[in-house]
Amino acid sequence: MPSLIHKDAVDALRTAVVGVSGYAGAELARLLLTHPRFAGTPPLFLGRDAAAVKLTSLHPQLSGLPNADDLSVHPFSWEMLEREQIELLYLATPHDQAREAAPIALSKGIKVIDLSAAWRLQHEPNRAIYKLTDADPTAAATIQLAAAYGSPELHGPVIAQAQLVANPGCYATSIILALAPLLRANLVDLNIGIIADAKSGVSGAGKALTHNNSFMYAADNLSAYAVFGHRHTGELLEQLSLTNDQIQFTPHLLPIPRGILSTIYVRLNTPGSIKLIQDTFDEFYANSPMVRVRPSPMLPQIQHVVRTNFCDLGFQLSPDGRKLVIISCLDNLLKGASSQAVQNMNLMAGWHETEGLL
Amino acid sequence: MPSLIHKDAVDALRTAVVGVSGYAGAELARLLLTHPRFAGTPPLFLGRDAAAVKLTSLHPQLSGLPNADDLSVHPFSWEMLEREQIELLYLATPHDQAREAAPIALSKGIKVIDLSAAWRLQHEPNRAIYKLTDADPTAAATIQLAAAYGSPELHGPVIAQAQLVANPGCYATSIILALAPLLRANLVDLNIGIIADAKSGVSGAGKALTHNNSFMYAADNLSAYAVFGHRHTGELLEQLSLTNDQIQFTPHLLPIPRGILSTIYVRLNTPGSIKLIQDTFDEFYANSPMVRVRPSPMLPQIQHVVRTNFCDLGFQLSPDGRKLVIISCLDNLLKGASSQAVQNMNLMAGWHETEGLL
Amino acid sequence: MPSLIHKDAVDALRTAVVGVSGYAGAELARLLLTHPRFAGTPPLFLGRDAAAVKLTSLHPQLSGLPNADDLSVHPFSWEMLEREQIELLYLATPHDQAREAAPIALSKGIKVIDLSAAWRLQHEPNRAIYKLTDADPTAAATIQLAAAYGSPELHGPVIAQAQLVANPGCYATSIILALAPLLRANLVDLNIGIIADAKSGVSGAGKALTHNNSFMYAADNLSAYAVFGHRHTGELLEQLSLTNDQIQFTPHLLPIPRGILSTIYVRLNTPGSIKLIQDTFDEFYANSPMVRVRPSPMLPQIQHVVRTNFCDLGFQLSPDGRKLVIISCLDNLLKGASSQAVQNMNLMAGWHETEGLL
Amino acid sequence: MPSLIHKDAVDALRTAVVGVSGYAGAELARLLLTHPRFAGTPPLFLGRDAAAVKLTSLHPQLSGLPNADDLSVHPFSWEMLEREQIELLYLATPHDQAREAAPIALSKGIKVIDLSAAWRLQHEPNRAIYKLTDADPTAAATIQLAAAYGSPELHGPVIAQAQLVANPGCYATSIILALAPLLRANLVDLNIGIIADAKSGVSGAGKALTHNNSFMYAADNLSAYAVFGHRHTGELLEQLSLTNDQIQFTPHLLPIPRGILSTIYVRLNTPGSIKLIQDTFDEFYANSPMVRVRPSPMLPQIQHVVRTNFCDLGFQLSPDGRKLVIISCLDNLLKGASSQAVQNMNLMAGWHETEGLL
Repeated sequence: MPSLIHKDAVDALRTAVVGVSGYAGAELARLLLTHPRFAGTPPLFLGRDAAAVKLTSLHPQLSGLPNADDLSVHPFSWEMLEREQIELLYLATPHDQAREAAPIALSKGIKVIDLSAAWRLQHEPNRAIYKLTDADPTAAATIQLAAAYGSPELHGPVIAQAQLVANPGCYATSIILALAPLLRANLVDLNIGIIADAKSGVSGAGKALTHNNSFMYAADNLSAYAVFGHRHTGELLEQLSLTNDQIQFTPHLLPIPRGILSTIYVRLNTPGSIKLIQDTFDEFYANSPMVRVRPSPMLPQIQHVVRTNFCDLGFQLSPDGRKLVIISCLDNLLKGASSQAVQNMNLMAGWHETEGLL
Repeated sequence: MPSLIHKDAVDALRTAVVGVSGYAGAELARLLLTHPRFAGTPPLFLGRDAAAVKLTSLHPQLSGLPNADDLSVHPFSWEMLEREQIELLYLATPHDQAREAAPIALSKGIKVIDLSAAWRLQHEPNRAIYKLTDADPTAAATIQLAAAYGSPELHGPVIAQAQLVANPGCYATSIILALAPLLRANLVDLNIGIIADAKSGVSGAGKALTHNNSFMYAADNLSAYAVFGHRHTGELLEQLSLTNDQIQFTPHLLPIPRGILSTIYVRLNTPGSIKLIQDTFDEFYANSPMVRVRPSPMLPQIQHVVRTNFCDLGFQLSPDGRKLVIISCLDNLLKGASSQAVQNMNLMAGWHETEGLL
Repeated sequence: MPSLIHKDAVDALRTAVVGVSGYAGAELARLLLTHPRFAGTPPLFLGRDAAAVKLTSLHPQLSGLPNADDLSVHPFSWEMLEREQIELLYLATPHDQAREAAPIALSKGIKVIDLSAAWRLQHEPNRAIYKLTDADPTAAATIQLAAAYGSPELHGPVIAQAQLVANPGCYATSIILALAPLLRANLVDLNIGIIADAKSGVSGAGKALTHNNSFMYAADNLSAYAVFGHRHTGELLEQLSLTNDQIQFTPHLLPIPRGILSTIYVRLNTPGSIKLIQDTFDEFYANSPMVRVRPSPMLPQIQHVVRTNFCDLGFQLSPDGRKLVIISCLDNLLKGASSQAVQNMNLMAGWHETEGLL
Repeated sequence: MPSLIHKDAVDALRTAVVGVSGYAGAELARLLLTHPRFAGTPPLFLGRDAAAVKLTSLHPQLSGLPNADDLSVHPFSWEMLEREQIELLYLATPHDQAREAAPIALSKGIKVIDLSAAWRLQHEPNRAIYKLTDADPTAAATIQLAAAYGSPELHGPVIAQAQLVANPGCYATSIILALAPLLRANLVDLNIGIIADAKSGVSGAGKALTHNNSFMYAADNLSAYAVFGHRHTGELLEQLSLTNDQIQFTPHLLPIPRGILSTIYVRLNTPGSIKLIQDTFDEFYANSPMVRVRPSPMLPQIQHVVRTNFCDLGFQLSPDGRKLVIISCLDNLLKGASSQAVQNMNLMAGWHETEGLL
């Protein structure tokens, strides 16, 4: 993949973030405040509350970062976005709000990076689980069609030109990056289903208080959930061109704050060699600085990716060359959400993909 | 302390538990189901819900224990308690409900072990923090006066004869057991305040969903709270005959499910020896099988008491014999709540203090 | 399965434990000290150290349990075993020591429960990974052939009569109990391999200090290991009559002290119903009090089995009735080691299977 | 405190790190690789091994950072340091090696930041616990006298001019920063001892494998240690001008990877107001961007400082204005070690104190 740095890169970008109260929102705020392009013009933070509140009251851990103590989270209004001449809007809102807000932003010439699932899925049946509705279905269909799925490693050039980038799901990112190289190279026997056994830290469940993300439920525990129906499945099917019969995805809740490890079981079409698999991964990600392909038999582990934008990939092959186990790790709040969004912004602005992320 | 086993011990006891849905309630249910005296006549479980629900739907972890799969949690009614000829009632309810229910139970000849704070405090100002009200203040005052503070190591004979036992708070138990021997022996310089720096696992906060007992708040974290005003302070003052100036208690939230460790700083009146302190503790707890006094310099740690009814005590003395650090550990759901309640029941029934607890 | 309680059950049993210093050994000591049959005649504890050491110096958490503070761990000698008229010997030693010790014990008429892997595997190639040698290969072969694989749910009657019981591996127990009912009922399509993605707490790695069981490695982490070559695989193959091609087992290290959760992926021969699967499990374990089959779609979780001898099983079936996900949970130190050993002892002594385990 | 940015600041600095294999060393490497001044000339990494090893083999988590995959850890030699014209040397070695190496480096005109305790203490009795020896005691005494204690908030101008900076201990940093403002303002009643009850994550114990930093010891646990004799005590005494009678410091081992929280109990000379205390802290740290003074009653917590160079301070005052509780939090590997070292380097090089640290 050639360098994605625009010829017409801008120096800075007037940016706003809606929905900064959650875990991914806080990370996004941190990344933008420390991003070198925003030292002079920090992003505008917006929320659904009626009154402005200091950013550092909401997230005391951000205090001391550049500009952080001077910033407030303002009540959302389109007027403010226009008055501030916002060029790029991050939506870190519930799905339905993002489905509603993106068309309006686009109509005002504001580019959008949506961290919700509202615009990730091209096929309506895959989207059904989110119960989205559109005020103008025809316009929405057009916008949907033009939306880029925000996986820089798969769709870098498209993202660079997109008006609306649908930032991928955390589980989806970890599994798609592990499988895309093998599927593109036609190495996988799809008659035998792929198994993706994925494990995620608790922050993946969001900040709403539920029994399942209470300390007493999650600590010293492990549990499987959404066994045959996790909503990220649609992203896997669309991005990997698979049918439901060809991939089975089971998420588990890990007793850690953040991090995903996916263990992926694949049968090869014909017996392969370690070198073949290694080369397939290495070549696919040769120009992807945020994917670290480990040399087999080294395997990724969650600890190595937490608090980074990296997705780590590693694999081992059975002695007969038929069975492949791939391990994929990332930080669900970063490469699985906020830092991948910043990576997408970098591409859209014509900056180096890794700016502010290392 | 002489053996507390009654001459007129009973073989079994018709027992009921109100409020089994919380963490301490689940532990109490487990202890009673596996208590040898209840193999034939399991306790009656009652709740505030309108309809009966299987005990194991509420607490799947209890399934397979004796009688557990046959039992339901029934809607609370005094009629049921009478019909079932209940002799002893455990109250694991909110404070105000326990304040209301205990007098009624006593009036029906039913003994009560109250796990709430409703009846622990003799002095009204200490009780104010709980905002309790009494339908019949005069009657309540009489009941309060006769209530035993359920610390078997301090008040065993009184508990054995009591109609109402107020089961102590978890922090209070850990601190009181550490200080009582020294204060009774007049070893402590009370001009210099005692510091009790206590740390508790998350279950101490109960099962209600709050930000502070969410996994994302508590994990990988430590925080102090209620610095000058934790509501267990009143128990310390009353049980240890101290003034607010003489003891300072600071609780912290540990990133573990259960367990309390209190680090207690004391100045001695006159320089003491390790032997003096060791003997003071050893003698005080010579007949207390649930307190394990460790030989100095060995110090208790949380891991050794979790899932037990033990309170472990240890200490170290400064070279000049003036400064004493005492470490006290217990499981907040057990010796700090449910198993101490069972220990109290054993005393009240004339059984051996440790029955069902080892 | 009929009741396994012997007609000729004994009242007590002179028992010894070799190797009590590890995590499973400490749990075994705890279980035996609190087992009702051992109140009068506690087990004899033996170790490889040259001098006797107090049991509670080694494991302070055992202090206060019946007899615990009076017991020592003695240097191992066959003379002592004979002098104390030991009838049953637990081996909680390294594999090679257990391979050496068991024939000697049997020759002296002492029954053996071996917690190591020394005698679990009938086929030499499966055993090769443990690098065992035999002083008398012919005698060892005879002993091996007569050794019972100590899975009470699968081999209860054989265990009850055995002289040597090979206590199963922790991962193996969790996977075998999940698959045995389905394989016996011929429900599984073995042309498509079974995937067992298993996750274990750190105690499974034993007490030897290694980088991988250090806090800094394991905490907030998850890692896969031994991907195509975990040594428990042989137990799966032998107990389930499978070939290496038919089952793939991948262990992971969880950031928790104890507990195993295995997620097992199976294709059915022909589309099945939830009822068929549920009935298959329920019937298979109808007389197995230590296996809790959960009603689908309820799934086991680690928290519910930790500190118990239960193995919990649950499952979900894909809408098309072809794909089955089974979740199996147990405590690796208990049902995966020490309490399963005690369960085996109960069978061998003619006591109720669950004695001392609830 | 005026700005500490040199008039003669340099653009870059040839830097070397000895001892990069530990936890603090890995963090130091990460900070230097991502420090803007080192993009062109990455630091030289040296170790005690006989052969060079890739930096990313040692620390796979560093892969992908600027220059990281091209760097090796070379066998230490003074020749290499000279050949590479090293101007600043970080010592992240054992104490005795740092005591030996610093004088040699200084004699070659290389400045030193020592992360060990070798040069922190001016008074020999305080240093005795480290059992240091000097080849040339007279020279060592001179070097010791000129060594700056690397607390930028206390000794910024001295550090900026120093040849040898002794980077403070982690516990010491947290306690000294909490107490220095109050002691300088003479607010503390020193007749009543200060209590510093400190709690640290496991990384504070270093990477050597010990029972106490094994997962099974530390997880779900809390334990006190070194009750009257932690070796950081000397730093408290010297930096705060206190006697052993005036401060008592008790460390505890928290079940988390990183982070320190110190709860500090102080009596005021005369009853004070919240405003007085707040102003005292605010003014003292007005020009200290890496100390965040929280407005009372807000208290720091570990989660807010982990993975940052901040030290957070907060306090609460008793209603009578006599008793003060101060909470101090930092990341023991960063502000308690590596990032404080980088902060010191920034001062020595005349760069902004926070460069590369936000």
